[in-house]
Amino acid sequence: MGSSAPDQVTTGDHPVRAPTNTFTPPPFTIRSIPHLSDYLTPTGNHTSGGDQTVVTLPSLRNPIDSNPFYRPSSTFYISPYEVILSSILFDTNNPNPSSNSDVTHDVRVASPIAYHRAGPRRIINFDPNKVRAAIVTCGGLCPGSNTVIRELVVGLNELYGVKEIYGIPMGYRGFYTADPIRLDPRTVHDWHKKGGTMLTTTRGGFDLQKIVDAIVKHGYNQLYVIGGDGTMRGALDIYKELKRRKLNICITGVPKTVDNDIGIIDRSFGFDTAVEVAQQAINAAHTEAESAVNGIGLVKLMGRSTGHIAHHATLSSRDVDCCLIPELTFYLYGKGGLFEFIDQRLKQKGHVVIVVAEGAGQDIIAHSGKQEKDPSGNPLFADIGTYLKKELKNWWDQTHPGDQFTVKYIDPTYMIRAVAANASDNLYCTLLAHSAIHGVMAGYTGFVSGPVNRNYGYIPLEDIAVTRNVVDTRNHTWAWVRSITTQPDFVK
Amino acid sequence: MGSSAPDQVTTGDHPVRAPTNTFTPPPFTIRSIPHLSDYLTPTGNHTSGGDQTVVTLPSLRNPIDSNPFYRPSSTFYISPYEVILSSILFDTNNPNPSSNSDVTHDVRVASPIAYHRAGPRRIINFDPNKVRAAIVTCGGLCPGSNTVIRELVVGLNELYGVKEIYGIPMGYRGFYTADPIRLDPRTVHDWHKKGGTMLTTTRGGFDLQKIVDAIVKHGYNQLYVIGGDGTMRGALDIYKELKRRKLNICITGVPKTVDNDIGIIDRSFGFDTAVEVAQQAINAAHTEAESAVNGIGLVKLMGRSTGHIAHHATLSSRDVDCCLIPELTFYLYGKGGLFEFIDQRLKQKGHVVIVVAEGAGQDIIAHSGKQEKDPSGNPLFADIGTYLKKELKNWWDQTHPGDQFTVKYIDPTYMIRAVAANASDNLYCTLLAHSAIHGVMAGYTGFVSGPVNRNYGYIPLEDIAVTRNVVDTRNHTWAWVRSITTQPDFVK
Amino acid sequence: MGSSAPDQVTTGDHPVRAPTNTFTPPPFTIRSIPHLSDYLTPTGNHTSGGDQTVVTLPSLRNPIDSNPFYRPSSTFYISPYEVILSSILFDTNNPNPSSNSDVTHDVRVASPIAYHRAGPRRIINFDPNKVRAAIVTCGGLCPGSNTVIRELVVGLNELYGVKEIYGIPMGYRGFYTADPIRLDPRTVHDWHKKGGTMLTTTRGGFDLQKIVDAIVKHGYNQLYVIGGDGTMRGALDIYKELKRRKLNICITGVPKTVDNDIGIIDRSFGFDTAVEVAQQAINAAHTEAESAVNGIGLVKLMGRSTGHIAHHATLSSRDVDCCLIPELTFYLYGKGGLFEFIDQRLKQKGHVVIVVAEGAGQDIIAHSGKQEKDPSGNPLFADIGTYLKKELKNWWDQTHPGDQFTVKYIDPTYMIRAVAANASDNLYCTLLAHSAIHGVMAGYTGFVSGPVNRNYGYIPLEDIAVTRNVVDTRNHTWAWVRSITTQPDFVK
Amino acid sequence: MGSSAPDQVTTGDHPVRAPTNTFTPPPFTIRSIPHLSDYLTPTGNHTSGGDQTVVTLPSLRNPIDSNPFYRPSSTFYISPYEVILSSILFDTNNPNPSSNSDVTHDVRVASPIAYHRAGPRRIINFDPNKVRAAIVTCGGLCPGSNTVIRELVVGLNELYGVKEIYGIPMGYRGFYTADPIRLDPRTVHDWHKKGGTMLTTTRGGFDLQKIVDAIVKHGYNQLYVIGGDGTMRGALDIYKELKRRKLNICITGVPKTVDNDIGIIDRSFGFDTAVEVAQQAINAAHTEAESAVNGIGLVKLMGRSTGHIAHHATLSSRDVDCCLIPELTFYLYGKGGLFEFIDQRLKQKGHVVIVVAEGAGQDIIAHSGKQEKDPSGNPLFADIGTYLKKELKNWWDQTHPGDQFTVKYIDPTYMIRAVAANASDNLYCTLLAHSAIHGVMAGYTGFVSGPVNRNYGYIPLEDIAVTRNVVDTRNHTWAWVRSITTQPDFVK
Repeated sequence: MGSSAPDQVTTGDHPVRAPTNTFTPPPFTIRSIPHLSDYLTPTGNHTSGGDQTVVTLPSLRNPIDSNPFYRPSSTFYISPYEVILSSILFDTNNPNPSSNSDVTHDVRVASPIAYHRAGPRRIINFDPNKVRAAIVTCGGLCPGSNTVIRELVVGLNELYGVKEIYGIPMGYRGFYTADPIRLDPRTVHDWHKKGGTMLTTTRGGFDLQKIVDAIVKHGYNQLYVIGGDGTMRGALDIYKELKRRKLNICITGVPKTVDNDIGIIDRSFGFDTAVEVAQQAINAAHTEAESAVNGIGLVKLMGRSTGHIAHHATLSSRDVDCCLIPELTFYLYGKGGLFEFIDQRLKQKGHVVIVVAEGAGQDIIAHSGKQEKDPSGNPLFADIGTYLKKELKNWWDQTHPGDQFTVKYIDPTYMIRAVAANASDNLYCTLLAHSAIHGVMAGYTGFVSGPVNRNYGYIPLEDIAVTRNVVDTRNHTWAWVRSITTQPDFVK
Repeated sequence: MGSSAPDQVTTGDHPVRAPTNTFTPPPFTIRSIPHLSDYLTPTGNHTSGGDQTVVTLPSLRNPIDSNPFYRPSSTFYISPYEVILSSILFDTNNPNPSSNSDVTHDVRVASPIAYHRAGPRRIINFDPNKVRAAIVTCGGLCPGSNTVIRELVVGLNELYGVKEIYGIPMGYRGFYTADPIRLDPRTVHDWHKKGGTMLTTTRGGFDLQKIVDAIVKHGYNQLYVIGGDGTMRGALDIYKELKRRKLNICITGVPKTVDNDIGIIDRSFGFDTAVEVAQQAINAAHTEAESAVNGIGLVKLMGRSTGHIAHHATLSSRDVDCCLIPELTFYLYGKGGLFEFIDQRLKQKGHVVIVVAEGAGQDIIAHSGKQEKDPSGNPLFADIGTYLKKELKNWWDQTHPGDQFTVKYIDPTYMIRAVAANASDNLYCTLLAHSAIHGVMAGYTGFVSGPVNRNYGYIPLEDIAVTRNVVDTRNHTWAWVRSITTQPDFVK
Repeated sequence: MGSSAPDQVTTGDHPVRAPTNTFTPPPFTIRSIPHLSDYLTPTGNHTSGGDQTVVTLPSLRNPIDSNPFYRPSSTFYISPYEVILSSILFDTNNPNPSSNSDVTHDVRVASPIAYHRAGPRRIINFDPNKVRAAIVTCGGLCPGSNTVIRELVVGLNELYGVKEIYGIPMGYRGFYTADPIRLDPRTVHDWHKKGGTMLTTTRGGFDLQKIVDAIVKHGYNQLYVIGGDGTMRGALDIYKELKRRKLNICITGVPKTVDNDIGIIDRSFGFDTAVEVAQQAINAAHTEAESAVNGIGLVKLMGRSTGHIAHHATLSSRDVDCCLIPELTFYLYGKGGLFEFIDQRLKQKGHVVIVVAEGAGQDIIAHSGKQEKDPSGNPLFADIGTYLKKELKNWWDQTHPGDQFTVKYIDPTYMIRAVAANASDNLYCTLLAHSAIHGVMAGYTGFVSGPVNRNYGYIPLEDIAVTRNVVDTRNHTWAWVRSITTQPDFVK
Repeated sequence: MGSSAPDQVTTGDHPVRAPTNTFTPPPFTIRSIPHLSDYLTPTGNHTSGGDQTVVTLPSLRNPIDSNPFYRPSSTFYISPYEVILSSILFDTNNPNPSSNSDVTHDVRVASPIAYHRAGPRRIINFDPNKVRAAIVTCGGLCPGSNTVIRELVVGLNELYGVKEIYGIPMGYRGFYTADPIRLDPRTVHDWHKKGGTMLTTTRGGFDLQKIVDAIVKHGYNQLYVIGGDGTMRGALDIYKELKRRKLNICITGVPKTVDNDIGIIDRSFGFDTAVEVAQQAINAAHTEAESAVNGIGLVKLMGRSTGHIAHHATLSSRDVDCCLIPELTFYLYGKGGLFEFIDQRLKQKGHVVIVVAEGAGQDIIAHSGKQEKDPSGNPLFADIGTYLKKELKNWWDQTHPGDQFTVKYIDPTYMIRAVAANASDNLYCTLLAHSAIHGVMAGYTGFVSGPVNRNYGYIPLEDIAVTRNVVDTRNHTWAWVRSITTQPDFVK
């Protein structure tokens, strides 16, 4: 920064506080979640109260009531009247919910939304002795998957007394090709300390009719599906098919995306661990860069469509000079471009550390030509890390021939995603699994659990399947955090 | 769990969703924060608009506007009209904000509250060339203190061009007894990788007049005070004295409490790191217990008045059988007591792991006699860990004479609190420091920054000084998480 | 160091090389190890060749010969003619083996010693189909115990085809009080990643006749005993009793002592891990001390009779000012005492880090009175850590009344010893277990395996039971490494 | 293993012990090390004793004698008569030193060798006030480099009172192109906690005359050169040139090779850390493989000409199915080939983990064509990891079309080599640096320090420059450790 004084502002209206001292938010829409009673006739007597259907289907007291170790307090059970506000930032001059949130997901809604709170219900709609639960993991590895599995098993067994719990190996295709694995608390007791998934996983293999037929054949009536956005869309299809067939089977999704690209919920499990472990790669890149003459440390981090890991890892590290993400267009050559910035930093500090999300800069990879896809149908990206490494060398050789220069490129992907969950994610996965169990036991279906502004809520699978959490580079937060690294804004 | 079916509920009204699909929250009180213009006459021209004082005092354009690397977007600056809702859980049957929050702090308010958002302001009230900033750390160690210091220095320097930044050694007493340490980005560049505080810290030493006289003498006009609740009360007193003397000096507090016992904000820095590192102690206790015959692993974790670390570490670990916290009364002997529970678990599993917060069970330590205090005036607790270890041995010898039995007691306090911040806390400390800088540069004073439902806001020091974050054992969350360990409820 | 030039030496004889260029060592005694054939009549034909008994008892080809995956090369098998020199430092002026070794164990022998090399033998004396192996762990926890167990199981099974392998729970007393646990490679496959012992362990319970009777009753013919010096003495007694009864049963000891106080072998397993993990405690103590005003960080490390962990952890850390060990007498008050040294360092650096081995300074704890013993008969030490902490405070209060002073005392014992082995110890435990298996399969008994100058050898249990590895403070090495910390020598 | 009994051996001579109980080793050659007095006339009086030159050149008492904190004991100083036996394995039937060592370096010598012990000398040949020491680091990163630098600085300063110590940036070329960096204990105090090298490093830039001219110009009289085998050959050339010019300047080499491919010494610094950190990559590969259906985890580890890291990491991990190293020829297709082995393991376990050293299998990469070289002249290898990954997929697609199969390839090179040294390497680097200082202060030159059978000795640079430490796949040790993984022997 230069040392000349900033411009004095001589006129204008610059209040330092909001000009009123109370504020009434606009009406919130309460998002309703599907329930078995939507399409099943209740087995018990029922009453209908006015405009609202009241269901008593199975209608059993929650067995936690009679747990010898544990007596629920008066506030233990959650009623369907309890909601969480999802949109909480307001401009009191214009009282629509602000999209300019410090938290990086961006729910674009016409009106603010409230979700039902997650938690145990006083009345449940499954007899625990008749529950046959199935748990399946799909897609790539993510820290915490085994904790979710462990806690589904332990929670169903210890809180509700469910005895029949099965793991489906090999992802969706395992429903119709593999033998299920019987799970009990003893089997899973130390799974939360293991990376990967003890059930094994594959991509693809989604065949709706084969899967639902297999579910019926095996007699599963509770389905816990752990997977990414493709998996969640599959779970939504299964829910619709179960409803179409009017089956007494609940399905819930546990969104798994280490990239944190799922919308509505605060963050996805494994993300915190990934950001933590990514520090090792950034530290190594920083050390390599610092120890060289004109050294560049280049780290590619996970994030196909979103740069959350790159973004958070950069802010956590304090050693990164530039963070490139899919949400932000950048260019290499010319004034205001990446290479000019690197040149300046090398002159100032002698080394530079760059973090690039795997989905960044796809547009600038000239004529990449073919866009391959993996078995889940996700596009295979051109490798921005390798590309940048090569371009950096070309640029240097042309502009600084003969000078020392080193680029060390690190791709730590598997070393990040294959670790066990850290403490924060283990806690999160535990609450996620228990939220899911309480919801399913109470007859909710076609839903997802997750923290909304730090309170656990239930969200329709339908909403989750269509919402993406991207880094909004137009809003205050990205601008602010970008200002922390003082990296270029790539505005020509 | 037994295998008998739960009781069928044959009558009643059990809606599965909220019976309306919109909800309008009650009015929110917007908490105003102090500003220099409250007691200083603005130096520039000013206008007053109706009932609201509009101040233009110094009134300079934010120099970020002219940063060559960085052009603020239209949404970069935060206006004082932007607020965050603090109370976000509602019972739509009774639309007062619910105290039954999943997140464990408990703001007891007559009406719901909204806070001003933190972030850069378009107009600032300090000429960066005339700023002399002072940073001080008080009280015990906490992971992240050095990151806060580093980011205050780097942020003031790189964003605003402030050159004169000083660290005050030795805590409050350092203002009037020690030489300040000149700080610049080069000095502090790797401090975020170090535990403790590079400025050194002491307890006590608060002498209001001596401190304010020293501040005036050294010409400091921005004060950044990092410390616990006693330190925050001291900062509030300094603010009041600065205001009384009508001094053009801003003060902001950065609450530091590894125990997470500060109210209003989502969590205090260092807490996440502490919970993570506590896992090592719990793992060791678990291994010692498992490897012995009738082995007990006993871990004492930090938490004088609140059990947050114990509580979170327990949920993160999944290996803990019982978690004892200050907020929960328990007893050792007799039916439903701790020892009966331990006896049962030993029979089931062969070993037991117990986590106890340092402030738990103070009432049951018979005839503790004297209650000593440390130099900050905090009461010194009787050592519940040593007490429990001794009582466990006594109990076993009396009830199982001759049988093998082992208690391994671990007190990892210093090994937890003296580490560097993890990635999550480093990110948090960075945003905390930058929030504080933006607020102070804009002339706010007597305030604290912090995340409120994951969005950074400004909170009056006055509120922070009187609010405590305790684990509310009467509400849903504690009940629910306690159900996860199925530990006894100690209700006689 | 002062800047005056050192004294010039004007006369004398100071050769810079040994005055001859060859050196012939004196004769080495080859230590013989017991073998089943010492007391059993061979079952096959046998020949006696002159003065040397040649045994062919069972006499089977090593089944590794016919391993489909693996064809032994010509140098695979070790012959009994192959030896390792144990004494390897010589003063060519006086060619007796030097006791002034860089490595800290000290074998005091009249003449230099050579040991038989460990490794697979071409001829074995057990039919793998008839082997019933028993593995037992005794005493306190030590990193690597589970790796030794795992590799005994995997090695016996995969290399020799042994199917009947049992774990004895609860230490020695488990032979006659507990049911054995059947072990196979599947059961133990991830045990090397776990701390403690999966077999459980206790102290004491050694009853020779009950144990040998139980061994006979269960039909075990190979015994692998993992434990400390008391356990090794027990194993020696079992060996003698097996020999007295002329039983076709081999016993081998795997010395387990995290303190590294066993003689002859280079180091004991778990020691390297303990030194590594101890760094965390020293780092925490250093951070606490640095962040305080006149801060003392005090760490107590394991080591009842020897200070190896303290000594190595100090040299590894580079942050320790003083290291106190049982082998070195020290005193607190007066000229040249610890407190004078601390006072000087505080003036120079502002903080001090002290590492004390648990067995150090027992003599200076005034009137310790009673010397209690644990169930294994090991003396219970007075707590030097707590004592030093108290004395430090007393000393400061008397000599610097009113000045700031802080002592942070850390006892990380269980957090060190209950971790899983690091890579170095895992490798070591693997080679240790395989050495033991090869020896036992070849009919050796009453022996211990271990690295002697980095080559694995076989050592009679009898020798191990009487040799102690202490830090020899009179020799070059201690003097040299102590010079690195420039701590006082406590010579009055 | 099959269950049929091994073949009985009915005749033959199978002694179980060496047939004599003493053994006299053959004569050892004592390797002499260069000394300044070899080519400089001593300045003091001198006597010549028979066939051995006795030098008193400068001849000062070691200033440690007058260290106020520290009084050397009678055994503190090492005399030139003290030697370490280097060859210590003997076949008593054929008493030449055995090359069949458990430790993997292989000194091929006509007769056994003894080295002079390292350590402080009573008489030194430098006046500390006149010392100008220069430290330089060359080549790639290696954990521990900064610890060596730190301890050279601290040791020279605190033990000998040397004040003028300089770091040469940028490797060899820095002597004649860069400004030296003044170093003192304060500057370097926490460098042992940092990876990389704080002095910066480059490859190449060796220009003998320019370097020696620069040394003379700057007045350096002690040179400490840290680098790999190319750097050591350069140091040897510098030594020869210094000798040719009859300069009063000592040079010592500190061999740095994370690959551990240096001969004679027990291991190179950083190697232990590298093996430790490599476990993370292997664990990730194992988790990825286990979580997939027919999953292969493939890890490439450092090791151009030797497979030590791969070999040790494999034995440490216990999760690796196959370890491929440069010293071992292997083939992919056909009977006994790698792919057959993988096929079998997948059938048995469902997943396979492979570790490959970077220099392995170069011969089987068909027609790689060009062999590029880096600036230090080291050949650039074809990438065996990428090659194997591709071949694995090809093989599977052809032999198991349509079946699930996954290869996850990890190259953790920079994440391994850029970390700080672990405790074991920090201790090692400390002793290494102090050995070097003591030798140089005593006038030795053209030498290297290092542990020989765990005792620190001095070795001529000339010997180090020509000796390679390779994994000898013909000897007992490799065969034995390979038997532990039961991987194929690739003998057609």
